[in-house]
Amino acid sequence: MNDAVSIAAAIQEGRLSAVEVAQTALKRIAERQELNCFTAITDDSALQDAQQIDDAIASGNNPGSLAGVPFAVKNLYDVAGITTLAGAKINAENPPASQDATAVAKLKQAGAVLVGTLNMDEYAYGFVTENAHYGATHNPHDFNRVAGGSSGGSAAAVAANLIPFTLGTDTNGSIRVPAAFCGIFGLKPTYGRLSRAGVALFSSSLDHVGSFARSVRDIATVFDVLQGYDDRDPVCTQRLPELCLSQLNSGIENLRIAIAGDYFTKGAEPEAIAAVQQVAQALDVTNYITIPEAHRARAAAFIITSCEGANLHMEKLRSRPQDFDFATRDRFLAGALIPSHWYIQAQRFRRWFRDRVREIFQSVDIILAPTTPCFAPLIGQKTMILDGKEILIRPHLGLFTQPLSFIGLPVLSVPIYRPGSLPLGVQLIAAPYNEALILRVANVLETKGIISTHTS
Amino acid sequence: MNDAVSIAAAIQEGRLSAVEVAQTALKRIAERQELNCFTAITDDSALQDAQQIDDAIASGNNPGSLAGVPFAVKNLYDVAGITTLAGAKINAENPPASQDATAVAKLKQAGAVLVGTLNMDEYAYGFVTENAHYGATHNPHDFNRVAGGSSGGSAAAVAANLIPFTLGTDTNGSIRVPAAFCGIFGLKPTYGRLSRAGVALFSSSLDHVGSFARSVRDIATVFDVLQGYDDRDPVCTQRLPELCLSQLNSGIENLRIAIAGDYFTKGAEPEAIAAVQQVAQALDVTNYITIPEAHRARAAAFIITSCEGANLHMEKLRSRPQDFDFATRDRFLAGALIPSHWYIQAQRFRRWFRDRVREIFQSVDIILAPTTPCFAPLIGQKTMILDGKEILIRPHLGLFTQPLSFIGLPVLSVPIYRPGSLPLGVQLIAAPYNEALILRVANVLETKGIISTHTS
Repeated sequence: MNDAVSIAAAIQEGRLSAVEVAQTALKRIAERQELNCFTAITDDSALQDAQQIDDAIASGNNPGSLAGVPFAVKNLYDVAGITTLAGAKINAENPPASQDATAVAKLKQAGAVLVGTLNMDEYAYGFVTENAHYGATHNPHDFNRVAGGSSGGSAAAVAANLIPFTLGTDTNGSIRVPAAFCGIFGLKPTYGRLSRAGVALFSSSLDHVGSFARSVRDIATVFDVLQGYDDRDPVCTQRLPELCLSQLNSGIENLRIAIAGDYFTKGAEPEAIAAVQQVAQALDVTNYITIPEAHRARAAAFIITSCEGANLHMEKLRSRPQDFDFATRDRFLAGALIPSHWYIQAQRFRRWFRDRVREIFQSVDIILAPTTPCFAPLIGQKTMILDGKEILIRPHLGLFTQPLSFIGLPVLSVPIYRPGSLPLGVQLIAAPYNEALILRVANVLETKGIISTHTS
Repeated sequence: MNDAVSIAAAIQEGRLSAVEVAQTALKRIAERQELNCFTAITDDSALQDAQQIDDAIASGNNPGSLAGVPFAVKNLYDVAGITTLAGAKINAENPPASQDATAVAKLKQAGAVLVGTLNMDEYAYGFVTENAHYGATHNPHDFNRVAGGSSGGSAAAVAANLIPFTLGTDTNGSIRVPAAFCGIFGLKPTYGRLSRAGVALFSSSLDHVGSFARSVRDIATVFDVLQGYDDRDPVCTQRLPELCLSQLNSGIENLRIAIAGDYFTKGAEPEAIAAVQQVAQALDVTNYITIPEAHRARAAAFIITSCEGANLHMEKLRSRPQDFDFATRDRFLAGALIPSHWYIQAQRFRRWFRDRVREIFQSVDIILAPTTPCFAPLIGQKTMILDGKEILIRPHLGLFTQPLSFIGLPVLSVPIYRPGSLPLGVQLIAAPYNEALILRVANVLETKGIISTHTS
């Protein structure tokens, strides 16, 4: 397997050099340019960093658990020397960042080699990565289809086998949706668990950082590196890291697993429901639980997102609305018009909903749900038929992801692939701070061959 | 001194009976009915409760630190068997409360005897207690003047010597303003430190419960009884009680005290500034600190108050606006129209402001500031002249209190009285959870005779 863990091992053991690995990655990136994953490629610094890793190894030092592994980040992470675009034309006028985001710095500290920054929906507001300024990112499995969004470049780069892992962000599903469409793993950890310092925010009470990878152990390794309190982020929780990689093989005998019923079984293509069944059967799970008022949770997430997003971008919405992506502008402006009452009510409902879901986790450890209601739509496609009704695609893609990020639950989208078909995702959901349980379940599924990445 | 501590001691020692004390209080309340402090008087249960205290003492039991002390609560505290009015005509249609508010229950547990509920501005939205439904509460020092609000009944009942202590709530100054106008002590503790369970909320992110009394030791005793985590209140902090009564005489030699400069020295009658100087001189304090952007803090507090208040009362604002007090209705409706952007921006500014003030408390322990910019205005008075400008009185009364409750700081308003003049208040302000320091300073001032209550 050419995942991050195996590459780091090969480099640490001298079977590969970090420079070779970086050169291979840069070559692949250049070959697959038409996918439009990257907005900047850091060739020079990547090769320099790789050389330092090789030098360290030659000197007998251990450069870290991700020694020489190439990675890239959604272009809303600060990278020293690069302007943080956040998918916006307006941001291209900003000076380069002076300091790496904490997450980027931690990965470099662990030996990973940054090769560039990745395309996204403008200001992370979207599920498709059809960016009006920087173009659409294409799905590696079907060039005519979207990669999903808003972390589309991050997902496509991993699915196209350009690099083993990337970072993205998830506010309503922006890691999980593209992970599902691209057939890879995407982890949205617990709200506040990983530092957001140096990451351009979108909707602060909903924004999470997270990662994409092609193996469970890579997700665990990157998550372990990113954990830890950061006083640069006022939202980051003061919690000691609980390393997950070493727990992957602890088994799942004592875990109580259930399928999300009702809301999470409706309004989806049969294949999306079948994917959940496939995972449930492999785990011998037949019982359902009900997450109450999930449709209201989604509605409240929409309100909070547009209100907080509008607040953050108000000055530019006033002074130069014409420079926004048309696909985000209208939603930001709508958010600016929403009365405070709606926002406060949405936040009040959120506390109620969080308490109800907390009660569910008294009797269940892991919940299964579809990631998206459908396969990746075509680029430019506006509507689709679901349950005999024509619906708008873009807002519908977060149907199953929004109610979960709404209350900050950790979720891993795992890839399900049937030959001849496009990939889909299944969400493994746990109570806050139980990422380790999720990864143990994912490890069992991966070992059994039920889930696996599908690169193209 | 006929304060709560002395009454409890006399009852515990058999010098007074609790029934006698209750009867005296009920007699005084009846004699001063024209002040309009009370909206309900619980004669029967008060005499029964007092009898139980006497019985307990006769049996050799200790009924608690407030044994037989009569008290009353602002009518937004739940009292089992009484409808919680919260100053509203609409609420009079509600069934009686089935359970005491946690604060009421704790005081009863400590032996205090509830004698009734107290008048307030409708839904706690005001600084004057000129309630359109239940009438104005009169200032015991001048019948034609307001008692202040929104906890006007609570302050007037203590200042008129009807009962030794009462409970109120403070969102923008609703304990401190009436305490100053009535010449008594009013403590607004740290946000979240005392349970609000069973208290009708007004603006949840700003609402505090607190107390009025005529001596520092009474404020300390009641505060000590009210402390402690309460799982009925989601906002109540899980912090161990730090009892204050036993620390009152610890002295203030090592405390760093400063006067709030700039904003807190302007837009006030000279007497209000002179009151602060009087306290500062007694403490030998001459240095000033600057709380930055205090005017913005006040503006943000106004926005948050009206938005959260409108959200809480939206259904009734829609279905029966004519049944609101005209003085609160317009502000609630205005709050309903404020865009979410303003509310979110106010909350964002709040975090900035809290951090700046936290920095100030690195080098200072106690800050002095005026409580109100003026003496109690006349009932019905709409405007006043300050600094040569005619200003609206009602919104102006919180000028010096709003920026402090905005970030949940503990504040005690202490009474300053010059013969021939009406009373005024000075705020003793500390960092969160430092109520004990405030009470030590107040104790020194009280011992020196600088501050003292003035009953009428």
